[in-house]
Amino acid sequence: MFQRGYRFVSRCAPALKAYGPIFLAHHGISHQLTTSPATMAASRSYHCQEFGTLYKDDYRMFFMQDQKPISPFHDIPLFVDKDGKAVEANANTGIFNMVVEIPRWTNAKMEISRDEPLNPIKQDSKKNKPRFVHNVFPHKGYIWNYGAFPQTWEDPEHVSPETGCKGDRDPLDVCEIGFRVAKRGEVLQVKPLGIIALCDEGETDWKVIVIDVHDPLADELNDIEDVEKYMPGLIQTSVDWFRYYKIPDGKPPNTIAFDGQAKGREVATKVLYETHDYWRKLVMEKSSRGPEWSCLNTRCKGSPFMVSPDEVEKVMDKQGKQQPAAPWDPALDTWHFIDREAAENSVARK
Amino acid sequence: MFQRGYRFVSRCAPALKAYGPIFLAHHGISHQLTTSPATMAASRSYHCQEFGTLYKDDYRMFFMQDQKPISPFHDIPLFVDKDGKAVEANANTGIFNMVVEIPRWTNAKMEISRDEPLNPIKQDSKKNKPRFVHNVFPHKGYIWNYGAFPQTWEDPEHVSPETGCKGDRDPLDVCEIGFRVAKRGEVLQVKPLGIIALCDEGETDWKVIVIDVHDPLADELNDIEDVEKYMPGLIQTSVDWFRYYKIPDGKPPNTIAFDGQAKGREVATKVLYETHDYWRKLVMEKSSRGPEWSCLNTRCKGSPFMVSPDEVEKVMDKQGKQQPAAPWDPALDTWHFIDREAAENSVARK
Repeated sequence: MFQRGYRFVSRCAPALKAYGPIFLAHHGISHQLTTSPATMAASRSYHCQEFGTLYKDDYRMFFMQDQKPISPFHDIPLFVDKDGKAVEANANTGIFNMVVEIPRWTNAKMEISRDEPLNPIKQDSKKNKPRFVHNVFPHKGYIWNYGAFPQTWEDPEHVSPETGCKGDRDPLDVCEIGFRVAKRGEVLQVKPLGIIALCDEGETDWKVIVIDVHDPLADELNDIEDVEKYMPGLIQTSVDWFRYYKIPDGKPPNTIAFDGQAKGREVATKVLYETHDYWRKLVMEKSSRGPEWSCLNTRCKGSPFMVSPDEVEKVMDKQGKQQPAAPWDPALDTWHFIDREAAENSVARK
Repeated sequence: MFQRGYRFVSRCAPALKAYGPIFLAHHGISHQLTTSPATMAASRSYHCQEFGTLYKDDYRMFFMQDQKPISPFHDIPLFVDKDGKAVEANANTGIFNMVVEIPRWTNAKMEISRDEPLNPIKQDSKKNKPRFVHNVFPHKGYIWNYGAFPQTWEDPEHVSPETGCKGDRDPLDVCEIGFRVAKRGEVLQVKPLGIIALCDEGETDWKVIVIDVHDPLADELNDIEDVEKYMPGLIQTSVDWFRYYKIPDGKPPNTIAFDGQAKGREVATKVLYETHDYWRKLVMEKSSRGPEWSCLNTRCKGSPFMVSPDEVEKVMDKQGKQQPAAPWDPALDTWHFIDREAAENSVARK
């Protein structure tokens, strides 16, 4: 059953021949596809410039287009075609831009900054210390290419009818499940397949599951059931990841809405359009919404926060020169083992 | 229950306080311990020298002691104290040297070479291509620090009473489960906790489960039950890893002896002593055993293959200068998804 419409590739042929049709759900790697012309064209249009020291609080990654800095939150379009070209929201390509903040298997909690002009990526910090997620066994770091959708925002004044919780004041989070480990700052063209809802202190924190449209398996994956079919265990493991990843920090398990089940493409797409509308209000109106967010931008026509590309060049002048990465703390390589049964019993007792 | 005798550390204290006693089995990291004096002393006595191009067939890592090359297979002692100092086999310290070939979370199948003088580490190859293990979801590369015990050898003329299979002609394999990601070529002092037996084409391929004696959890782990207690899920996941890791190469699941269960410290220790005896015969006698293995050494008194340290210096002259690593093939980052239920049904039908 896994062979239907399957892109067959030579280096996996023996596997698929012997065992594949029966039990191998395989990505069907093609070397050519790792640098598809479309991907190249799309990534060519943006590039990143790094400042400061990786893993320290002065680290910043700025986004550039046509040699000028832009905001990844406001200036990178959400609705695109497969080559990353902006389209109207009602074009319904089903394809969206995603900004990669955290490559798969890494631990540094990088994110688009809220209050800094042009929203460079920086490392989240807690008590003035750069924040890393711990490895919760059997996971190694983030298990997807993790990031945010540009031009989306989870409005704290909006109570989701699905979860009964308010928005968490952040761009919409996204987990890309393709075969490739993306780079921090890459802008990928992705299609939504499903969505998981975390409810954290009364706030909804949606996590959209997507695949890079240039991934060899992209054509086979169109909804959440396809993920289970081609990548058995991935959704359940993703829910496990979100439920337990804060335990090593002394926090309780996260609450996952919908009884720990992922919803499909339809809900994911609805949330994408909704959060895009909330972002539009944020950037187009001088209101009290999201006062912590810098809305400075160079591309959002009609926004009171828009300035000319030349005006923002000086934003980067204040940044320190890029330095070698700070030494890695080996303690971050620890695997934290959690007795899930005991954890669930403990929650049930409360 | 996880707190009994637990080395408590500040950065984990909140976690343990809130949820730890109930369900957090934690490594108890201490920064100081990552560079304990004992570890430093032990690693100071050996160092490694690399030649050729990492991930290509000319890559070699030689082991050195006192500025002279040695064989990691023959010249590094098996029986040691916690500082890595050689002791007699009957001293029963319960501590053994281990040579790290493959650091946790990496994929390149590095191993002590069979037929080359001084047995440098090189990358295993298949059909003239360097061999990598694939990532079988949810695993990322090897999930332990993987390597070999020096001065051990699985004799093909010996049929194991436990498995009914012959030895696989290789040094005894070892999986180190401590919190730290070791480096290729490191020599660790470890204690055995248990053992898993793979049976591959009629040959036994033992995998000894150990922990670095300098790991903060080492005192708590003394037998296989302790592993399950402090690291719930690790043994089962390790068995899963060994059962399925060759599937992406088109091979069937591996057979795990003892119904897929790990045996405890006693069996592990017995196999260690046995395989040490087989190694001794290999290196001490000019016999037909293991003709593919180079037994050249500089430390094994009484061995017909022993030469003076000065004589072996020229061995490294033939090696090419160290070059930058070959580019990483992104296809190796793919996760291979396996439907384990279908796999088991397929095996059962045969």
